[in-house]
Amino acid sequence: MTQDLTLNPDRFFSPDPARRTLARALYQSVKDLPIISPHGHTDPAWFADNANFSNATDLLLVPDHYVLRMLYSQGIPLDALAVARKDGGPAADPREAWRRFAEHYYLFRGTPSRIWLDHVFGEVFGLEVRLSTDTADLYYDTITEALQTDAYKPRAILDRFNVAFLATTEGALDPLTHHAKIMADGWGERVVTTFRPDDVIDASRPDFAGNIARLGEITGEDTTSWRGYLAALRDRRAFFKAHGATASDHGHPTPLTANLSDSEAADLFEACLSGKADDARQELFRAQMLTEMARMSLEDGLVMQLHPGSVRNHNRTLHEAFGTDKGADIPQRVSYVDSLKPLLDVVGNDPRFQLILFTLDESNYARELAPLAGHYPCLRLGPPWWFHDSPEGMLRFRRQVTETAGFYNTAGFNDDTRALLSIPARHDLARRMDARFLSDLVMEHRLAEDEAFDLMTELAVKLVRKAYKLPMD
Amino acid sequence: MTQDLTLNPDRFFSPDPARRTLARALYQSVKDLPIISPHGHTDPAWFADNANFSNATDLLLVPDHYVLRMLYSQGIPLDALAVARKDGGPAADPREAWRRFAEHYYLFRGTPSRIWLDHVFGEVFGLEVRLSTDTADLYYDTITEALQTDAYKPRAILDRFNVAFLATTEGALDPLTHHAKIMADGWGERVVTTFRPDDVIDASRPDFAGNIARLGEITGEDTTSWRGYLAALRDRRAFFKAHGATASDHGHPTPLTANLSDSEAADLFEACLSGKADDARQELFRAQMLTEMARMSLEDGLVMQLHPGSVRNHNRTLHEAFGTDKGADIPQRVSYVDSLKPLLDVVGNDPRFQLILFTLDESNYARELAPLAGHYPCLRLGPPWWFHDSPEGMLRFRRQVTETAGFYNTAGFNDDTRALLSIPARHDLARRMDARFLSDLVMEHRLAEDEAFDLMTELAVKLVRKAYKLPMD
Amino acid sequence: MTQDLTLNPDRFFSPDPARRTLARALYQSVKDLPIISPHGHTDPAWFADNANFSNATDLLLVPDHYVLRMLYSQGIPLDALAVARKDGGPAADPREAWRRFAEHYYLFRGTPSRIWLDHVFGEVFGLEVRLSTDTADLYYDTITEALQTDAYKPRAILDRFNVAFLATTEGALDPLTHHAKIMADGWGERVVTTFRPDDVIDASRPDFAGNIARLGEITGEDTTSWRGYLAALRDRRAFFKAHGATASDHGHPTPLTANLSDSEAADLFEACLSGKADDARQELFRAQMLTEMARMSLEDGLVMQLHPGSVRNHNRTLHEAFGTDKGADIPQRVSYVDSLKPLLDVVGNDPRFQLILFTLDESNYARELAPLAGHYPCLRLGPPWWFHDSPEGMLRFRRQVTETAGFYNTAGFNDDTRALLSIPARHDLARRMDARFLSDLVMEHRLAEDEAFDLMTELAVKLVRKAYKLPMD
Repeated sequence: MTQDLTLNPDRFFSPDPARRTLARALYQSVKDLPIISPHGHTDPAWFADNANFSNATDLLLVPDHYVLRMLYSQGIPLDALAVARKDGGPAADPREAWRRFAEHYYLFRGTPSRIWLDHVFGEVFGLEVRLSTDTADLYYDTITEALQTDAYKPRAILDRFNVAFLATTEGALDPLTHHAKIMADGWGERVVTTFRPDDVIDASRPDFAGNIARLGEITGEDTTSWRGYLAALRDRRAFFKAHGATASDHGHPTPLTANLSDSEAADLFEACLSGKADDARQELFRAQMLTEMARMSLEDGLVMQLHPGSVRNHNRTLHEAFGTDKGADIPQRVSYVDSLKPLLDVVGNDPRFQLILFTLDESNYARELAPLAGHYPCLRLGPPWWFHDSPEGMLRFRRQVTETAGFYNTAGFNDDTRALLSIPARHDLARRMDARFLSDLVMEHRLAEDEAFDLMTELAVKLVRKAYKLPMD
Repeated sequence: MTQDLTLNPDRFFSPDPARRTLARALYQSVKDLPIISPHGHTDPAWFADNANFSNATDLLLVPDHYVLRMLYSQGIPLDALAVARKDGGPAADPREAWRRFAEHYYLFRGTPSRIWLDHVFGEVFGLEVRLSTDTADLYYDTITEALQTDAYKPRAILDRFNVAFLATTEGALDPLTHHAKIMADGWGERVVTTFRPDDVIDASRPDFAGNIARLGEITGEDTTSWRGYLAALRDRRAFFKAHGATASDHGHPTPLTANLSDSEAADLFEACLSGKADDARQELFRAQMLTEMARMSLEDGLVMQLHPGSVRNHNRTLHEAFGTDKGADIPQRVSYVDSLKPLLDVVGNDPRFQLILFTLDESNYARELAPLAGHYPCLRLGPPWWFHDSPEGMLRFRRQVTETAGFYNTAGFNDDTRALLSIPARHDLARRMDARFLSDLVMEHRLAEDEAFDLMTELAVKLVRKAYKLPMD
Repeated sequence: MTQDLTLNPDRFFSPDPARRTLARALYQSVKDLPIISPHGHTDPAWFADNANFSNATDLLLVPDHYVLRMLYSQGIPLDALAVARKDGGPAADPREAWRRFAEHYYLFRGTPSRIWLDHVFGEVFGLEVRLSTDTADLYYDTITEALQTDAYKPRAILDRFNVAFLATTEGALDPLTHHAKIMADGWGERVVTTFRPDDVIDASRPDFAGNIARLGEITGEDTTSWRGYLAALRDRRAFFKAHGATASDHGHPTPLTANLSDSEAADLFEACLSGKADDARQELFRAQMLTEMARMSLEDGLVMQLHPGSVRNHNRTLHEAFGTDKGADIPQRVSYVDSLKPLLDVVGNDPRFQLILFTLDESNYARELAPLAGHYPCLRLGPPWWFHDSPEGMLRFRRQVTETAGFYNTAGFNDDTRALLSIPARHDLARRMDARFLSDLVMEHRLAEDEAFDLMTELAVKLVRKAYKLPMD
């Protein structure tokens, strides 16, 4: 039986009439404001080349680790979902994979993936029935055909979605050729890069030594020495900044930072480079490098982002067969109060420094993150991240963070996605949930109505511009 | 002054009229479905012998560690509650103990014990006034008299409660004579055992070496050798399976698992058996044995349950005087992401394996458990356990788990109780809270109404049948 | 533009009409009951000397670390807020500082500081417009002028606020001259001290050895010996008790306790006193001293309070420039189940002992604290502390604690403040949030209405009197 797909205009608001009416008004006041997307993982080649996407499966299913993980958790092999094996083994064809997905769409009930996907299906492709076994082919054909048209080319999509600013994320060794093309085409103020140097900082990676050598070649610095290595990083930061970057980003297993002496750090670098450092020393090196990056940030003004606490590639078998980003990353417990202290001792009170913190361990919201951000002038809290980028996750964030850190120590919303078409869905959800939260505060007489409207704009566009040092209009 | 005891038909639903109306309809759709109770601690002798229970105190007060702990916390000695001392010292007589309980019934305000007990008093015994000092004797007499009748014999109670399936839990050395009797009487598809081998796995127990020797006698295997010990365990698993078991259960202090080589494991077993293993080595042995049990599960198909994180018998004085299970077990912080990895590396992707995880540390719900269950095909999340088997606990579980793991990676409800009469109260509460949660999702346009009704049946009976490999009807 | 300042009579209640009506009735039943403030940090000199306060800034801004931290987090230097530098450097004058505060008052949107301050502004000073740049001088003048009148002298304020009992907190070496004066003036049953011996227990303090020497001088005991040191502490406890103390208070980094033998403890004391103890040994000494204090409590009956888990003076630069209590204390993760066991093994079942536990790590509420307090007769849970003394924090506390510990193992409300004028605001908020929580329980049929009214009085005045051993009327 085919069911209607409807996106209720009051979705995600409280159903209580008084709360809903105010939430609706708050949402209306920002819903047409441009989208600012300062952190994400879309492919810059899309915006450089502006070519059409191929089909529904390759665009919406294969790259979405949220979707893959849920289907895999219910016993569906990744190759049946058209995910390529590393050994080149056969995978399902796109239409077959899509049918498999459609057949199991009920698994996403109650998840944000369902919210985002229904938004894409309804708003972006005009579909009016729910995805199911019966409608799988209708979906596949409708979407795939639309993708062949000019209206669905990447730049047209940014226009249609009113995306005023979009940052992608590239490794330190990336030549940024796509971003050079984007700049040459006059899109350079709208689509920029972000400096993500994990590949030349994380000595536990098998390719670390090779990456450091390549870093030397690219920059002309002697990266076999600590001093040359730092100079090379400075050089790359400048190169990224010249390609629009306003921020660096760091994805470490923990938020540990360190403040070693220069000679200690040089020795540690040498041990890491020669492969003699054990796990603990590699962790210390990552820790030290966060402080080094913070120091460089004082000079070049790049805002620093820290995304710690994900245990990557937890499923060894799956990782060996299919590679990274297939939904097998699992959060672990972390702490910030002790981990960040070495870095904060160095730069915590410097007005030039800005550090945006993220977490997958929500027990830190009220205990450590809000108190830290509610004190240190350099700290801002990023929005609920990854598994917590959801209605309940957003409510937990606001409820646990606001009373200690206020609103002004938060950094607006990030979509953090490689799923291009879901960008408006995610920002729309965030705006709705903020409207709901503010409406509740007003209805409980914890905030005046004029203040709620003022905050709505801050949360939608102003705070993110401030946090990432973007032009205010 | 005597107060009415009323069980409002809309209890535990949101009082908001629109939410309540839908919650009521959802609840109505499942309230008469049979009770499936795949994990609990009722006494199989009850169902084998089908004898009458003695009196209100012995049935409802003395075995209920939730009730004992609360009364003890307010200074009431356990012997005043008719709990027997290990040294045979005098305890209060049942009626006196009941009066003491009644006098302090106000202590349970706001607790699930109050919810369960009022349900038992009102629904099972037809009492219409609240328990208090004034009504203590009325209660004691009404309940005790009813218990002497045929209608309150154990098997009649299962019929009356519409319990279609009930699993008890027995140690590895148990002869299962009660279950043999149950099978002989034709109740073997309805009341089964569960294999709980902690007594022959946990080397920190004073009786460990004796238990291993006994294990050898029972099975005819040489349990002084690692190989013989494993063979003996395989033998017992088969014996339990022949008595209806579909699952094993493991109550470890932590969820640690290990994947030692065979010779390392053999050495560790020898050290444990000879009493030379220190705490850390005993912990490692428990860890290794979880992986061994998982391996055996691939062969015999028993579903594995893991209940970690309780520090047992925290109150030394009380434990010495009164023994175990008197309300002095306290949860501790645990983590799963690292602890489970060794086991998951071995069997995590094997379609024959199924592991149901429980926790007392709710900080793991959104951080580790939902991401793990939302990825690994072998994992399912058990319902909120013990201290969290309550209205708020159930809401926290659904709110923190659903967005990442969905509904289909959860395993329905367990009552996990030795309090026979509270079984329908607990399942009724779970069904009401699920109805409430689903109603909220629908009213907030996060789920369609037809999907909510479909999910209601899944949560009430279908998911539990799938998770525990029970017949689907 | 100037906005009205209004304190809605239904503030903080649920806006749902049915819930709100009952919450209002519950609140009305206790709103005029006296304030019992058993734990706080007001200055006893105020009540001894009964002198007028100077001006708005010195009373309301400079001592409020909640306010300072938020302003500092947004880049406002503390000297611009009239906070004195330790080196005597210049600070802003009071009116300038007040203007700075007013200009940034929007930062407090959504925080409890805003709730408390608006209550003080509206209820205590009769202000009818919101604090802002435009109204800064009106505020400063209105408040400062009022403070010069008799009606705003400290004792008049206690009368006006209906404060029946107020405990201050003094270090073990304090001569308690202010409290002697308070007693001499006949206020000794209303304003008392609390024994806070951190200064002579925490061997990590630079002044520890000096404090121990001074302790010897004051008491005439030989505090170079373990035995003499304990005797001196006993002596000081008696001295504090003679000045009205009913409780001791302990502010340790962690809740660790220990139970060393007498000779081990004596050796440890010697190591600490001679400066030879490392961090871990100093921590062990604090741990042992909690158990020693508990033992002394059996003799003298002082209730013990434990406030663990704050990392003090996290911002080194700020601490060096401005000293302690400037908003740079950050909570850290702690655990209770293992930490408290040594102490509980000694005194946990003794009816003479009472320990009130606080936490900044809310992950312990449902996991460890409610189970511990719901079992051990000596334990009570203090109210949500510091960062959690807020609407959301209070709801989290009740929702996570009540189902396991009930209401009767909690200890009523503490304002824990040095902000004298905010005392009624804080108690009013707590009473409103309790009314809201109880109203919800009734509306969801989890509690009868008569019980909710009974509990309202318990939560407002009775439980706190019992927990701190105060006269019941």
